[in-house]
Amino acid sequence: MILELADIRIQTGKNAEFEAAIAHGVKTIIAQAQGFQGWKVNRCIESPDRYVLQIFWETLEDHTERFRNGPLFPQWRGIVGPFFAVPPHVEHFELVEKSA
Amino acid sequence: MILELADIRIQTGKNAEFEAAIAHGVKTIIAQAQGFQGWKVNRCIESPDRYVLQIFWETLEDHTERFRNGPLFPQWRGIVGPFFAVPPHVEHFELVEKSA
Repeated sequence: MILELADIRIQTGKNAEFEAAIAHGVKTIIAQAQGFQGWKVNRCIESPDRYVLQIFWETLEDHTERFRNGPLFPQWRGIVGPFFAVPPHVEHFELVEKSA
Repeated sequence: MILELADIRIQTGKNAEFEAAIAHGVKTIIAQAQGFQGWKVNRCIESPDRYVLQIFWETLEDHTERFRNGPLFPQWRGIVGPFFAVPPHVEHFELVEKSA
């Protein structure tokens, strides 16, 4: 399993609208993608314009190739993109270790 | 519950030693801290010197006050600090929403 971690900065003051939009976007668009296995979004306490979105994919290519080059990506960006202050910083991760 | 997210850059080539050290440090030191509820560390695929450590705390102050100002913090930094290329970037988060 691969973790996609997206570091997001939104336009100041749009928190409630963004939180509704990102939940809607994941549940209606990303959840349809091949290899999608789950998600989580957290709001930063120190930097209230910052969010971290975690999406779990079966393989790296499920995100980087099939999702990003497929028809779902523009639908997703159409929902969340208007809130972004800058392009999100996105990288992928493998699990090293975690608590039980 | 509060999520501490630490963005870590280590010295190139020290991955195996760092991964052993961080697991040892969490399990022997941080796990003793008041309010500690779990942890996870992931290694970045695109940037192999990058790790993201997630620690779950009962309250923000369990980390920012009691842990950081207490006797466990220098023990923890003594274990993982030698691997850092730069000081980690650490912020705290609240859960907005996640999949079941």
